[in-house]
Amino acid sequence: MTRASTYLDYNATAPIRPEARAALLRALEVPANPSSVHAAGRAARDVVEGARARVAALVGVPAGSVTFVCGGTEANALAIESARASGFARIIVGATEHDAVVETAKASGLPVETWPVDANGVAHLPWLEADLKAPGRALVCLMLANNETGVIQPVAEAAALVRAADGWLHVDAVQAAGKIAIDFSALGADTMALSAHKLGGPQGVGALVAGTRATLHRRQHGGGQERGRRAGTENVAGIAAFGAAADAASRDLAAMAEQAPWRDALAERVRAEGAVVLGEAAHRLPQTLCFAGEGFGSEIQVMNLDLAGVMASAGSACSSGKVKASRVVEAMGRSDLAPFALRVSGGWASTEDDWIKCGDAWIAAWKRIGARRREVA
Amino acid sequence: MTRASTYLDYNATAPIRPEARAALLRALEVPANPSSVHAAGRAARDVVEGARARVAALVGVPAGSVTFVCGGTEANALAIESARASGFARIIVGATEHDAVVETAKASGLPVETWPVDANGVAHLPWLEADLKAPGRALVCLMLANNETGVIQPVAEAAALVRAADGWLHVDAVQAAGKIAIDFSALGADTMALSAHKLGGPQGVGALVAGTRATLHRRQHGGGQERGRRAGTENVAGIAAFGAAADAASRDLAAMAEQAPWRDALAERVRAEGAVVLGEAAHRLPQTLCFAGEGFGSEIQVMNLDLAGVMASAGSACSSGKVKASRVVEAMGRSDLAPFALRVSGGWASTEDDWIKCGDAWIAAWKRIGARRREVA
Repeated sequence: MTRASTYLDYNATAPIRPEARAALLRALEVPANPSSVHAAGRAARDVVEGARARVAALVGVPAGSVTFVCGGTEANALAIESARASGFARIIVGATEHDAVVETAKASGLPVETWPVDANGVAHLPWLEADLKAPGRALVCLMLANNETGVIQPVAEAAALVRAADGWLHVDAVQAAGKIAIDFSALGADTMALSAHKLGGPQGVGALVAGTRATLHRRQHGGGQERGRRAGTENVAGIAAFGAAADAASRDLAAMAEQAPWRDALAERVRAEGAVVLGEAAHRLPQTLCFAGEGFGSEIQVMNLDLAGVMASAGSACSSGKVKASRVVEAMGRSDLAPFALRVSGGWASTEDDWIKCGDAWIAAWKRIGARRREVA
Repeated sequence: MTRASTYLDYNATAPIRPEARAALLRALEVPANPSSVHAAGRAARDVVEGARARVAALVGVPAGSVTFVCGGTEANALAIESARASGFARIIVGATEHDAVVETAKASGLPVETWPVDANGVAHLPWLEADLKAPGRALVCLMLANNETGVIQPVAEAAALVRAADGWLHVDAVQAAGKIAIDFSALGADTMALSAHKLGGPQGVGALVAGTRATLHRRQHGGGQERGRRAGTENVAGIAAFGAAADAASRDLAAMAEQAPWRDALAERVRAEGAVVLGEAAHRLPQTLCFAGEGFGSEIQVMNLDLAGVMASAGSACSSGKVKASRVVEAMGRSDLAPFALRVSGGWASTEDDWIKCGDAWIAAWKRIGARRREVA
């Protein structure tokens, strides 16, 4: 990333934090397998366990509750497959969940129901309460914060309902972690997925946090790593960097919150141009903004911003470079706006100036498009 | 790892190569998700695709044959589960395969047979030929080189039998890659597992190579990454480093072969003291030595060497720090020696002096133990 460019796509990947990079480099100096019993092996084990304590602290759990995996997708899969192996009979999936949850639930072989959200993208609690009365113990998947809109879900309220119905609540906190404070116990979740690269750690590392009611069933078989919960040599350097990023993210939560006014200023500017801000009435992450300018296709917006040196995205980045109409926006009842949604997401290195530049670039492009449309008309 | 210590545990984890470390650091400067369509995303995509070509070149396949995963264990699992999903009815597993293969095969739900090895640890081809006549299309799992003994299996010969029986040959090449030349097509495998950290790349990255007869079925669901074969944001920096390590390993194959005389000199020295060298009559990797001194328990050996600043291991390192009797040595018909096996494995930074120091330390410890035993007697 050159200095001249403006990166506002943290929800896709955050640039690595200096602390995480330093921890990664230090760990590379310990060239060993943590399962080796010799000095280097024991040093690698110490690195992993130190990082485990740091990641655990990010969400307020004991270190033993954390199982390291290779990313958010695997963390979600480990939770869903563990619930299935534990005998849960059906899965209830929030309408705006990430594909990692939706597709894994579908692949599980269990019946899957979609739990609707309201116009602000907030999951409808009375629907859940009614649905949980149906037969079959349910795994309920509700993300803590949405990747496209930043909308924060009523997880604690859902947890009370799920617990009363003897269900399993899995919370995908991949986008929330490091952006807002998380207290796993207070939320009442049974499992929670985390990803390092969304909070300034490296790609290729994640964790599943499991409470005392959840039994994990390993889905990757082989060696006895992670106390038998997940086979495969640990990614020592990646884990070390995840721990350092978690530490730094905890420290920086107040600074992250300070992006909300920058985000809101951008929202004001684009609204003044006629764009619609999505999920604005809901509690949201402080650094995510989703809006749509009717007729200004998502892909065209991203390309126009890119030409102006501003990097943002259209919804989720996980579909191999293809820009599709936002499923999240459709679930909020705005199919009319889904092809036009843009996601702007800041992070630890973002400045107010970045948000202003993004607004400048978007408005300039929007005006060009509008002018062209008028010429055609 | 301090300068004073001698690391001969490359089969557990190789220290990262300078080229891989440099590639990792360069890739960390591209803070993006390869699925993002903006400039940084496209740069990240280029890094991944460049590395894919390099890893492919290591085993002589087109880049499109390579699917990146998070390590050797996942690569083996993707192959085994793909064969199951493709309708293969049973699994034949070499007696000295790694736990990642053995345990995944067991967990697949398919019937699993163990394919015996001879006294040198070499898989018995007539047994396979006879077994393949039984009903049910078989997935056959045969490693290219054993992690404990370095014994190289007759993969091409097995492949001819498997192909004639319309089976699927999966080759775990995690320990062979980067130590001997590999030509995927000449071997005739259908799938092949690779791991970055065994050849000087970072931990947490691996690849599955698939030939044209194999159809991969994704086991990690979510985004459309890796052409739909494996969901989850790509570990861009790890993949970049894997590519650089693969390049460097290809270049260094001749140097790796030069370790064989150093290994053989150590074998001579320990044999002169009464130890038994395992698999010595078989083709072996040039940098792996497995031997057993009767009565000198594996764990005690590792600890004694460690105290002398020499890091080696007892069999596989993947069992969470526990030292167990070697299953590989047992399969070779030497249960009597299995509790006493030691594995010494060099790599890209090893010197002749390392192998000499290892011999010095082992012989000194062996003599101490012997003296103590004579005192007791």
